[in-house]
Amino acid sequence: MANQLTYTVAVVGATGAVGQQMIKILEERDFPIKQLKLLASGRSAGKTVRFKGQDVVVEEATPDSFAGVDFALFSAGGAVSKELAHHAVRHGAVVIDNTSAFRMDPDVPLVVPEVNMEAAFKHKGIIANPNCSTIQMVAALKPLYDRYGIDRIIVSTYQAVSGAGASAIQELLTQTRDVLDGKQPECKVLPVGKLPVHHPIAFNAIPQIDVFTDNGFTYEEMKMVNETKKILGDDSVLVSATCVRIPVVYGHSEAVYVELKQDYDLDEVKSLLEQAPGIVLVDQPEEQRYPLATDAAGKLDVFVGRVRRDLHHPRGLHMWIVSDNLLKGAAWNTVQIAEELIKARA
Amino acid sequence: MANQLTYTVAVVGATGAVGQQMIKILEERDFPIKQLKLLASGRSAGKTVRFKGQDVVVEEATPDSFAGVDFALFSAGGAVSKELAHHAVRHGAVVIDNTSAFRMDPDVPLVVPEVNMEAAFKHKGIIANPNCSTIQMVAALKPLYDRYGIDRIIVSTYQAVSGAGASAIQELLTQTRDVLDGKQPECKVLPVGKLPVHHPIAFNAIPQIDVFTDNGFTYEEMKMVNETKKILGDDSVLVSATCVRIPVVYGHSEAVYVELKQDYDLDEVKSLLEQAPGIVLVDQPEEQRYPLATDAAGKLDVFVGRVRRDLHHPRGLHMWIVSDNLLKGAAWNTVQIAEELIKARA
Repeated sequence: MANQLTYTVAVVGATGAVGQQMIKILEERDFPIKQLKLLASGRSAGKTVRFKGQDVVVEEATPDSFAGVDFALFSAGGAVSKELAHHAVRHGAVVIDNTSAFRMDPDVPLVVPEVNMEAAFKHKGIIANPNCSTIQMVAALKPLYDRYGIDRIIVSTYQAVSGAGASAIQELLTQTRDVLDGKQPECKVLPVGKLPVHHPIAFNAIPQIDVFTDNGFTYEEMKMVNETKKILGDDSVLVSATCVRIPVVYGHSEAVYVELKQDYDLDEVKSLLEQAPGIVLVDQPEEQRYPLATDAAGKLDVFVGRVRRDLHHPRGLHMWIVSDNLLKGAAWNTVQIAEELIKARA
Repeated sequence: MANQLTYTVAVVGATGAVGQQMIKILEERDFPIKQLKLLASGRSAGKTVRFKGQDVVVEEATPDSFAGVDFALFSAGGAVSKELAHHAVRHGAVVIDNTSAFRMDPDVPLVVPEVNMEAAFKHKGIIANPNCSTIQMVAALKPLYDRYGIDRIIVSTYQAVSGAGASAIQELLTQTRDVLDGKQPECKVLPVGKLPVHHPIAFNAIPQIDVFTDNGFTYEEMKMVNETKKILGDDSVLVSATCVRIPVVYGHSEAVYVELKQDYDLDEVKSLLEQAPGIVLVDQPEEQRYPLATDAAGKLDVFVGRVRRDLHHPRGLHMWIVSDNLLKGAAWNTVQIAEELIKARA
């Protein structure tokens, strides 16, 4: 970046799956960093993390950790954000929070830069990063929303275990090897670590992500319903979701059916997607080309394919949306918000 | 079975993934067999298969293999069915065909016993077994169709590799071990063996099953559209499908959204599902109980859970439908049709 100013950046949850990706992206993007502060729970304090050829020591995150911090990127769970984000703001930092702690707070903008960066500029200290499954869907639907309007969305997800953290990745890999070796897989983490019942994820599909709400939908599904409305700033957009965990390590896939408000031209839809920022259209079925989780892993973009007209509803459209849930779905979207804030200041 | 009569049964494709399951089910159900003829390609002729404690030698399937055969169960690919089914009929056999060869033939009933067994009784020699992904969906929706009527269905599938045959199972297992061992996975079978491009299935989700049609949907997706109408005998039922292969060995899962023709009571829906033949309701989200592929594997039933009212559409309903694709989706549905034909004769 050409910007001459440099910033002190704190990563809270530096040793977690998302925190690690944040540090990697800050380095890869050559984010203008004066000082990098790596914060985590007392358990992880003292560990070192490599950044730009140097070992940075992880410190315990406390209310006083944020003096001089310009950007505090939180990804250490909702409880930590609720406890410490306001202290970071008190010290003058802009908090970009990757947990669900503040997402539906009316005073906190919920931001996907390609969709509603203008909301971020009105922050009062905290900006929330949406849920991974919401980000990639809304980013892909935004150009269609702007052109045609959206009545409703019905989405089924195929979500990677990395969304449940490093322990879920380890569980999938260990279980998978055990099953291949004819052993009984041990289940301790998925679908939800803190709940009493655990199911195998190796060679399985678990239709539960996060806990259930009273209406029979899970919190993960309700996040897609509510966050989509908030990001688009439009309560009339109706979302129904079924969120499913599958044996994939990196990359969420989504089968999305959308009913637009107006008639559409399919070639125009594809052209809008091709031109949209952060979106890559991968849609040559005749060459068997469509987005795949294994191709999206490690990339920053949202990949869209299988774009096709519904067989029955004149305004119905189907698509397959894939992105790396730890990157655009979490770490990259967070760093991207900070980059955009800096650009606007320059 | 109490029936005193016994029958000569031929299994065509005896060494394939479905054929093996057919033989197992014939034994487990104590099907009243006088003689079991195992038929396959010349390549498999001479192999032996264990049946009721005896070795049965596999013979090459030819036009003259069917003398004296009462039931010929075909599962050796569409080309073999097209070549040999009529010879079996000529010899007086009832053909129950598990391929797509005759499914949409107006002279051939397409049968799920719980849904439209009456159609089977009107056969002219050949009865078709529907596609695996269709069978479990239609079986689960039938009680709701009868009570409320169905306007439309939007389904996303999570399909096991065994639906693509024994070579696809082997490919998933080999690729998975290679990835765990840090090796590059070799891709030769999925998504479609005969097509030029192959994608990894280990730790991935492939949004292609069967080849693409001109409208952007795959044949697998169009099977769900067209077979559902034929089985229900109602062209007004609209289906839209996205069919996806995931790293599961046995058991297809489906996220199904259905719009009924009439208002419904959710408790009544659950009660109808509980009472429906061949359906098991597994739906206690508060105890994290819902159908799972790993639980359905090896069972004959169709498992339904996550039954919940849509958040927006007054007649909209969501459910999660899981069944063993090789059993109710193939081998068991085939043998079940034969059992029902015998019962009706008794």
